[in-house]
This record gives sequence, structure tokens and C-alpha cells, in this order.
Amino acid sequence: MLTTPHGTVPTPVFLPVGSQGTVKTLTPDELKLLGVGMILANTYHLYLRPGVETISKLGGLHRFMSWDGPILTDSGGFQVFSLGHLRRISDEGALFRSHVDGSEHFLTPELAIEVQEQLGADIIMVLDECPPYGDSMESIRRAMERSHLWAERCQRRHKRKGQALFGIVHGGTFAELRRHSADFLTSLDLPGYAIGGLSLGEPKELMHDMLDETVPLLSEDKPRYLMGVGSPEDLVECVSCGVDMFDSALPTRLGRNGAVFTRHRRYNIGNARFKTKKGPIDPDCDCYTCRNFSAAYIHHLFKAQELLAYRLATIHNVRFIMRLMEQIRCSILDGTFSTFREDFIQNYQPTDAGIRVEQKKKWLNARQGKHPQNEVIY
Amino acid sequence: MLTTPHGTVPTPVFLPVGSQGTVKTLTPDELKLLGVGMILANTYHLYLRPGVETISKLGGLHRFMSWDGPILTDSGGFQVFSLGHLRRISDEGALFRSHVDGSEHFLTPELAIEVQEQLGADIIMVLDECPPYGDSMESIRRAMERSHLWAERCQRRHKRKGQALFGIVHGGTFAELRRHSADFLTSLDLPGYAIGGLSLGEPKELMHDMLDETVPLLSEDKPRYLMGVGSPEDLVECVSCGVDMFDSALPTRLGRNGAVFTRHRRYNIGNARFKTKKGPIDPDCDCYTCRNFSAAYIHHLFKAQELLAYRLATIHNVRFIMRLMEQIRCSILDGTFSTFREDFIQNYQPTDAGIRVEQKKKWLNARQGKHPQNEVIY
Repeated sequence: MLTTPHGTVPTPVFLPVGSQGTVKTLTPDELKLLGVGMILANTYHLYLRPGVETISKLGGLHRFMSWDGPILTDSGGFQVFSLGHLRRISDEGALFRSHVDGSEHFLTPELAIEVQEQLGADIIMVLDECPPYGDSMESIRRAMERSHLWAERCQRRHKRKGQALFGIVHGGTFAELRRHSADFLTSLDLPGYAIGGLSLGEPKELMHDMLDETVPLLSEDKPRYLMGVGSPEDLVECVSCGVDMFDSALPTRLGRNGAVFTRHRRYNIGNARFKTKKGPIDPDCDCYTCRNFSAAYIHHLFKAQELLAYRLATIHNVRFIMRLMEQIRCSILDGTFSTFREDFIQNYQPTDAGIRVEQKKKWLNARQGKHPQNEVIY
Repeated sequence: MLTTPHGTVPTPVFLPVGSQGTVKTLTPDELKLLGVGMILANTYHLYLRPGVETISKLGGLHRFMSWDGPILTDSGGFQVFSLGHLRRISDEGALFRSHVDGSEHFLTPELAIEVQEQLGADIIMVLDECPPYGDSMESIRRAMERSHLWAERCQRRHKRKGQALFGIVHGGTFAELRRHSADFLTSLDLPGYAIGGLSLGEPKELMHDMLDETVPLLSEDKPRYLMGVGSPEDLVECVSCGVDMFDSALPTRLGRNGAVFTRHRRYNIGNARFKTKKGPIDPDCDCYTCRNFSAAYIHHLFKAQELLAYRLATIHNVRFIMRLMEQIRCSILDGTFSTFREDFIQNYQPTDAGIRVEQKKKWLNARQGKHPQNEVIY
């Protein structure tokens, strides 16, 4: 159980992403009904728009978005490197241009903490440098050292009570660096640790190797959080590596693009096979979408580009992931997780191509400083 | 009270528009919570996509869209003249090109009825020719005569039980034609009558004059339905002319464009004055949006082009209109409607400019055969 000032959530837990203070298409009431316990919001987005002062004046992020459950904010680091136009980076901080209006901003560890204190999330993250997968070991090492320096400065600056500051282990796909990073960060005795810099296009095996190297070095008593992972097969696998928390925009973004999860595989609802399908997307699903609408209706809404399409597919995908996490938790509690895992992997046909495309896109964007949101419908 | 096979609704009633089998952004559950009793769906849109056979195979329109309340479908006439690319019209029917894929279709009164029987709405409409405002009296007269001919053919063809076929009074802004049309149609003894060809850009006074000419000629015992009207001030005024039913995409479309109703006037939520407004859009409103979110949050969602923006503004506007209709009905029941009306008109500042722009656009589109949906955000 992960206890925060805004409630306790059972782990392993998946956090849907609400970058701009909204999990796209959904209301807070719906999130609750879907079984969502905790969400992630992006400091980078909210800092640029509507601005931290505005949110602070309106009573903080919880009140602003009318979500009374736990919130985690990231530090803005990843977005500065992937979405923003990074101009210059030094030990002092990162100079970047806003993707909203082109204005220049200088993000330091101290500013990242101040902003996150003002937003008032339950869990906040240290500022980190996020190099793309594929960089040289030396380059990854330098970024890691800088992230360590920044982690210390974040810890020093952080004052707000009732807010947990998490560290982020880096080191890319180099076991030696991962071990070093885990050692260094645990020495800071922070209340939780994330594993950053993974799921950036590296082969799945490498990701699992890195988790196997890193997770055992992080205390079992503190949350271990793998950032940016959210495909069903990855969730099951990474829980088996000992991860307690996940976040990813994947389930919601895929939904808006018409890709819907079922227990056996992912489908594209726009496919002609669904044009006259009377049954729901997934007969085993208990979500509002599956209980009320045929796959043919959802297919129609996507073809007609109706806004309800994006919402109903998001509802389904979020609920699918929430149920998956529930099943994982139950199987852990009754000691059958390894059977559950085997069973799941055997029956689930991962859409490798699709996932790889997503990851590659992420990585390419990180490399090119492109805004990935420009490439999806919504 | 208007009784249909799918339930009884109190009148005067406003029908939100669900052109493509969805009231944009909203689920059927939400419509119920907002107090919506009956909705309108467009035969033209559904005939072209997903096609009537598909809907019929899936159990009809109610089941397809999972709405178990009353539905009214229009005949497709108005859309053929305004959205479609009309190719040729004769007494036989109208040849048009689909705005979806450019395919050619020949819409006859008989086909309009067959399609509506297959969709299975509770109330269906006769096929009519819809000339734009500004046409000569002779041209309006010819269209009216053709619509009368088509009304007879529709009545002859209509067989499905439990479905009421409504006639549509035409005659543009010519009192003599309106009287003639009302006389002719009432002689067919249909179960309800609509007033078509108004709210197309003509001055408000002309619209009221035409209602004053037409409504008294239509039986008080049968529903009198003014098509395409939905601004708050028009609803109040036209109820005083004796209208029982209304439909319009205005409240939902305005919402998606950030224009929100309050008891005193319409606001554009994107306006800078809302950037930090702590209170709701309308402190008197009981909708989900106003009970849970500050105007500043809605403003932020619109600026960030978040899908939730369109949904929350739609919820507010539909609820506003539903409450207005409730207030109208209550005041009629307790004999205070004329006071309510005076009070409303005195305190409401109609956004004439905006409404006129909307109406003018409608009319220009009708003239030019343009698809108005191309001109709005969603």
C-alpha cells in the first residue's frame, strides 16, 4: 500500500497520464469509476500553461483539476529533452524554448522543486537529464553524474511537508552505471525511487536486464517506480522484476488512435472487421463502453471522427489496464502471480510492431526535439 | 405531455442534435443526467454512414446508440439542400452527392420513409424541399407545392406501427403561403406538425410573424415543432407563440467553440477575463461542470485544446437549455409564464451578432451547398 496525504493506493499501481491537468477526454468522476487510484501530471506542461502561479492561486493542482486522489508530478526533465527545444545544458540547469509560445526558460533543480511545491502533488520527482537510448557510455555517464548532482540539490531545496521527493536511477543500458546510480541515490535516503531512461527504444531484454540489475539495489520498503511503461505485457513482466509503480500515456493515446486492448491482443477498431460486429470490443470487459455499445458503434464513431469515439476508447483502455493491475495484485496476494504471468504471456499476442513504433517515435522525438503530440490525432 | 413508444416527455421540449448517432462528446447516460428527454438524429448522416442496413442489422437506431428514450429523425431534406451537393431536383425526388465519399444518391419521399422506418425513430418527418431565405415568392411557392406533394407520398408509403409521421409547414416568410401550407397539411390529419424554413437568416420579427400566422392554424392537440431553433431568447419567445418542440445544434456547437450560456448572457470562455476566475462559469448552474470546475480550469482546457474542454462546455450548455425548458414548463403550469418571459427578456442580453452570424452562415451554406461542419473546430 502506498499512503499519501490524498489517500492510499494498493501497489503495483499504474498512473494514467494527465499532462495538462486532465487525463485526456475523462472527468475525475470517471477516473474514480474506472478504478484509477493515482494520476501523473506533467510539470513541464503546467508550468508553461496555465502557469504555476495561476494554479497556485486557484488552490493547487488537486483543486484546479478537481481530483482529490493522489497526484505525482514529474520534474519536467524528460519533457525539456523530448518536447521542448533544448538550447543549452550545463551543471547549472537547462535552457529551453517553450513548445507553446517559443519563450525561453531556464530550468534548474531548484526551480523544478519550487514549481512542484507550488503545484502541490503528493509525490514529486528530482530533475534529471534524459539522454536518448543509443548514446555512448561516456555520454550516458556524464548525464547520470549531472542527474546525481541535481538530485542532491533538489533534496536540499525541498521543504514542503506532506510531499515525497523521489530520486531517479539513470545509467541507460549499462549495468555498471545502473548499479552506481542506484548506490548513489539510495545513499540520499529518499522516500522512493524511480527508474528512468528506459522504454526508449531499447530491446525488451535490455530493459529487463536493467531492471534486474537495478531493482534489487532499491529498498523493498520504498516504492520502485518505472517511468514511461504501460503496455499490458510490459506491466506484467516488469511487476515480476519487482516494480511497484508505472506511468505511461500509451493506453490513453492508443485509445484516441482507435487501438483497443483485449485479453488476447490489441485491435484497431477502425478495421473493417468491426463494421458490423454486434458484440462489445471485449466481451470480458466490465467498462461502460463494453457494457453499453457494440464494437460496430465504436467503429462508426471513429470513422465519423466523433469526439465520443476518443472518449469511449479511452474508457475501455484505462479500465483494461486497471483491471490488469487488480488481477496482478490479487494474484500476488494469493501467491499465484507466477502462474498468472505465465498464463498472461502465453495468451497475449503483443503487437510488437506497434509498440516498437511507439517507442521508436519517443526516442526519435527525444533525439530530434520534436513534439510527439503533433503526430497523433489528438 | 408527448407520449412515444420510448417514453413520455413533457412539452415544450428541446431536442439536442445527435447527427451521426451521438450528441457530440456526450454519452446516453450523461444526456439522461442532464435532463434530456428526447433527441434528434439526422437521417442524411446515418443513411450515408454507417448506412441504414448496418444500423438495422444492429437492432435499430435506439440500440445502435444505446439511447432508450424517444428519438426523432428528420427526413434528410434539409441536409440534402444545405450539406449535400444537390445535383438535380424534380417532383420525383432529389439527386445529390454524398459529402462523405462523393457517391450519388437519389432521395425520394418513399426512400426517406423507408430509411426512417428502418432506423426506427419514434417520430419521423416527411421529405421537404428547403429553399433558402431570400428566394422569390414564386420560388418559395413552387418548393412548398412540391413539399405538399411529397408529404402526401410520404403519408401513403408510411406503414411502420408505433412511429408518428409529422408534416412540415413551409411558405418561407410569406404569410399567405404559410396559411395555405398549414391548411393543406392539416387536411392530411398527420399526428404532428413542424414549421420548417425559418431561422434561416430572416429578421427575428419576421420569424415571429410567421409563427403567429402558422401556429394558430395547427391543432392545439398535436405537437407543433419549430425546426432549427435553439438560442435561449428564441426558445422563450417561440414558446410564447405556442411552439411545443424545438431542435438545434446551436447549444452543443457553441459549447464546442467555447461559447457558454448564463442567465444573463453568453460568454466566450476563451476570453482573458476567465484566466484566473475561481468561481464556476455560472454560479446559478447545477451542472457537473459548474459544480466541479472553476471557469479558469475550463478556460485552460480550451487554450490547451484538451478534448475535455468540448465535453464540459457541452454539458453546461445542454444543461442550461434543459433547465430553461423546465423553468418554462413550470411557469406555464403555475400560470406565470408571461412574467417569466418578461423577466427573462429583460435580464438576458442576446448576443445578436453571434446568433446572426450563426444564422447567416446556415443560410449561406444552404445557398452555396457548403458543409457547415467544415467551418467549426469540431
